[in-house]
Amino acid sequence: MGMGMSCLVGMVLSHPSCTPTAMTQETHRTVCWYPPSFDVRVEDVAMPRIEHPDDAVVKVTLGGLCGSDLHIYRGHGGIDKVHTCGHEFIGTVHKLGDNYGSNQADIRPSLYKNLKVGDRVVAAFTVSCGECHVCHVGYTCRCPHGLLFGSPFLNGGQAQYVRVPKAGATLFNLENPESILKSLTPDKIKHINDASLLILSDILPTGLFGAVQTLNHPKVKAIWEGKGWPGVFFSDADADPSANAMNEEDKFLTIALVGLGPVGICALVSLLDLIWNLETRSKFRYRIVAVDLLESRRNKAQAVYDRIQHPDKGKNGDVVVLGGDLGELKEKVMEWTGGVGVTAVLEAVGHADALELAFDVVRTFGAITSIGVHGAVPIPFTGRQAYNKNISFDFGRCPVRSMLPRAFEILVKRQDVFGEIGTESSLIDRVVPLNQAPEMYRKFEKGDVGKVLFDPWK
Amino acid sequence: MGMGMSCLVGMVLSHPSCTPTAMTQETHRTVCWYPPSFDVRVEDVAMPRIEHPDDAVVKVTLGGLCGSDLHIYRGHGGIDKVHTCGHEFIGTVHKLGDNYGSNQADIRPSLYKNLKVGDRVVAAFTVSCGECHVCHVGYTCRCPHGLLFGSPFLNGGQAQYVRVPKAGATLFNLENPESILKSLTPDKIKHINDASLLILSDILPTGLFGAVQTLNHPKVKAIWEGKGWPGVFFSDADADPSANAMNEEDKFLTIALVGLGPVGICALVSLLDLIWNLETRSKFRYRIVAVDLLESRRNKAQAVYDRIQHPDKGKNGDVVVLGGDLGELKEKVMEWTGGVGVTAVLEAVGHADALELAFDVVRTFGAITSIGVHGAVPIPFTGRQAYNKNISFDFGRCPVRSMLPRAFEILVKRQDVFGEIGTESSLIDRVVPLNQAPEMYRKFEKGDVGKVLFDPWK
Repeated sequence: MGMGMSCLVGMVLSHPSCTPTAMTQETHRTVCWYPPSFDVRVEDVAMPRIEHPDDAVVKVTLGGLCGSDLHIYRGHGGIDKVHTCGHEFIGTVHKLGDNYGSNQADIRPSLYKNLKVGDRVVAAFTVSCGECHVCHVGYTCRCPHGLLFGSPFLNGGQAQYVRVPKAGATLFNLENPESILKSLTPDKIKHINDASLLILSDILPTGLFGAVQTLNHPKVKAIWEGKGWPGVFFSDADADPSANAMNEEDKFLTIALVGLGPVGICALVSLLDLIWNLETRSKFRYRIVAVDLLESRRNKAQAVYDRIQHPDKGKNGDVVVLGGDLGELKEKVMEWTGGVGVTAVLEAVGHADALELAFDVVRTFGAITSIGVHGAVPIPFTGRQAYNKNISFDFGRCPVRSMLPRAFEILVKRQDVFGEIGTESSLIDRVVPLNQAPEMYRKFEKGDVGKVLFDPWK
Repeated sequence: MGMGMSCLVGMVLSHPSCTPTAMTQETHRTVCWYPPSFDVRVEDVAMPRIEHPDDAVVKVTLGGLCGSDLHIYRGHGGIDKVHTCGHEFIGTVHKLGDNYGSNQADIRPSLYKNLKVGDRVVAAFTVSCGECHVCHVGYTCRCPHGLLFGSPFLNGGQAQYVRVPKAGATLFNLENPESILKSLTPDKIKHINDASLLILSDILPTGLFGAVQTLNHPKVKAIWEGKGWPGVFFSDADADPSANAMNEEDKFLTIALVGLGPVGICALVSLLDLIWNLETRSKFRYRIVAVDLLESRRNKAQAVYDRIQHPDKGKNGDVVVLGGDLGELKEKVMEWTGGVGVTAVLEAVGHADALELAFDVVRTFGAITSIGVHGAVPIPFTGRQAYNKNISFDFGRCPVRSMLPRAFEILVKRQDVFGEIGTESSLIDRVVPLNQAPEMYRKFEKGDVGKVLFDPWK
C-alpha cells in the first residue's frame, strides 16, 4: 500500500492544498472538483497536515460517492473553489495532534483521551466538537465548529488522506471498546468489511435520523403507544369520558416512505429495527408503504425487505412497495388507507414534488419528516393548508455523530442486508480504484451505476 | 329570564333558520351575519330543534366574540350564507334527542348516557362524535362529523338557543362528576362564574394546545428532560463517549411566545402550568419571552403574570414581555439568547410576518408551534432554509374536546387570573346584552374593545 509520493507539481498547481514551491513535499492522490460543473479530476496534491492540536489525519481505506455529492458536481452550489470531494470515508488514524493521549483532562469527551494512531475509524460527514451546547444536546451537525467534508471549506475523503478537525468528537472509533456499544467489542465486529461500515458516515445514520424523527413525533407515538394524543401530559385521571379509548383498530401505524435511494432504504431498515425494538410492538399493527418512481429502486427495496431475517418480521405488520407516477401513487396510498391517509410520511428525496406528495397522502394530524436536501424553492403549500390539515413537519440534516452508536448497532445486526456488495439487495454497487472517479461521477449522475466506493490504494 | 317568543316574521325572512309560513312558531334572539361583510344584525329566528337523536338544544347563558369570528365578519371566508354567529358558548341543556339516557349501550361514550336536561355545559367550538378513529386518537377537531359553530354549516352560540350535534361528545358537562376530573366535583366549582368558564369553548384549550405541542416536541423535551435529543430511542448504554452529557448550562429552555391576544395569554398561563407540573421542574432553567407589537396586549400579559400566585413562580425561570417592531423584536430575542435563538416558538397570531419572526428567532433544531389561523399565502421560507436550520413545525386547529379536561383543571387552578371581568389582567373585557352585537363587532374589529361576551337574556 504505497503512498502517493509523487510530486507532479504541474498537475497540482490549481489545487489549493498544494504548495507549488515545495518541490519535495509529500503528496497524496485525491478526487478534485473544478468549477463550474461536471468536472472532477484525479490529482496528486500536498498531504494534509495537523493544523490544530485537536486534528487527526486519517489514512482512508474507502471513500464513498453519495447522491448529495451531485449538488456540487452539477454546479448547483454556486461554488468556485477547487477542493477534494467526498464526505463519506473510513480509514485508520495516521497522525494525531498534541491534544490526544491519556493526559487529557476528564472534562474533554473521552475520545480525545482514547484515540490512538492506528485505530480503525469512520467519520461523521460533518465536523463536531462534542464540547459545546449544540453537541451536548445532540445536534452535532449544527455544531458551531461544524464543517462539511468535501466542501470548499474542508477537503474530503475521496483521497488517500484527510485531515479531520475536532477528531475526538467527529470520528467514531471502531477499535476502542470505550467508544462503541459495550457489547460490540472489536473482535465481534472483525468480520464486518469496510464497505459495509462506510455507510456509517452518512446514509445509515441519515436514514435512522428520519426513522427516529418519524416514530418519535408525538402524533405518531400516540398510535404505537396506544395512549391517544397528547397522552404524555394527561394522566389516566384525565381520561376523557366523552370519548372511548383507542381500540385495536385505531392502533394501526401507517408510514409512507417516499424515496428509495440508499438513504431511503436505510430509513426502511431503521424503521423496522426501531419498531421491532418497541416494548409495545405486539400491541399495534403497522404498514410501511415504500414508494419510488424508479423500478430499479423499488426492486432493491423489495430485495432488502425480502432478505431481512428477524423473528418479528411479518408479525403485526408488513412492507408494501409501490410505484407509478405521482398522481397514481397518491391514489394508491389513499385507497389503501381507506381515504384517511397515512399516519406519517418520511420524505427522503429532497424535491418539492416529494413534499407535495407527502402533504397529499398524510392524514389530518399527520407528521411529515423530511431528510432530503431541498432547493431554494418555497415549501409547496400555504399556511392555511397546513392549518386545515393540522400538519407537522421536521426538516433538516442528520446529526450523524449523535446517531452513530445506534446506527452502528443496526449495521451490525443487519449484516444480512448490509454485509454484501454488488448483489441485488446491497446498497453498495461496486468498489473501484480512485482513478475511475471521473467516469463514475458521470455514470452516477446519469443513474447508470448505483452507490460507488473509491479505493484510493488500488 | 323570558324567552324570545316574539314572531317578528318580517325581520327574519332572510334567515335560513326561519320558516316564514309558521306564523306561530317559537323564535329566539340571535346575532346573524349577512354577506358580503361587516354586517351583523340582531334577529329573532326559528328556535333550533332536535334534528338527530344525538342532538341536544342548549339554552345559552353567554356567547363569546372571538378574534377568529372576524374572518367571517370581514368577508374573508368567501361565504354567502346568512347564519347565526359565534363558536363560543356556555349554557344549560334544554332538550335532548332520543339517544340519551341510561339505556344507552356501554359502547357509547359515557356522556351519551349521562347527559341530562338542566346540566350546565360548555361546548367545544367544533362538533365531534367521540366514536370514530379520529376522536379516539384525540384529534376531535378533525372528526368526520365535525362542524364549526357559527358557520354556514351550523348556527352558532351568539343566540338564546343553539342546536348541538353529537352533543354527548361535543359538550363538556360541568354538573356530572363522571364527566369532569374526579377531584373537581360540582360543589368545588360552584364559585366559578360563567364568563370565566366560557373560555373553555376555545381560547384556553387552544392556548393549552399550543403549550402542549411546544413542550411535547422531542426537540424541546430534550432540554427539560435533560437527556439530549433523541433520548427516547437511546438507552443509557448507547451514551455517546464522543460527547459530554448535558450540563446545567445546557438545560435552559427558552420559549418565544409570539402574539399576546387572549389565546396567547392562555398559552402563557398554560406553558407555566405545564412547566410547574413537570417532574423535572427543578432540574432545568427556563425563560418565556412574550412578544407583541401592541402595548395594550403586552400590558395585559404582564398583569396576568404579575397576578399569578404559585409556589414555583420565579424559581428557575421567568417571563419577559417584549415589544418593538419586528426587526427590533428579532434583535432583542437574539441578543437575549446570546445569538443562539430560542428553543421553541409558540406562534399565536396567524400571519406570515409572525411565522417569519418565529423562523428568525428560533435556534437551529428549533421547534415552531403555530396555533394561528393562517391565510392562503405560502409558508414564508424555502425547503432549503428549513433544511439548513433543522426546523420543526406543528400547525393547526385545537382539538378542544380532547383538551377540555386538562384545560378545565387549569381554569380552576388559575382563578387568580381567569376569575374576574374587566380588570387589567382579565381576559374578558365586558359582558353586554346581545343587541349590542353590531356595535361590539365594529369596535372589536378596530381593536377598540377587548374580548366581549353576549348575554342573550338581558
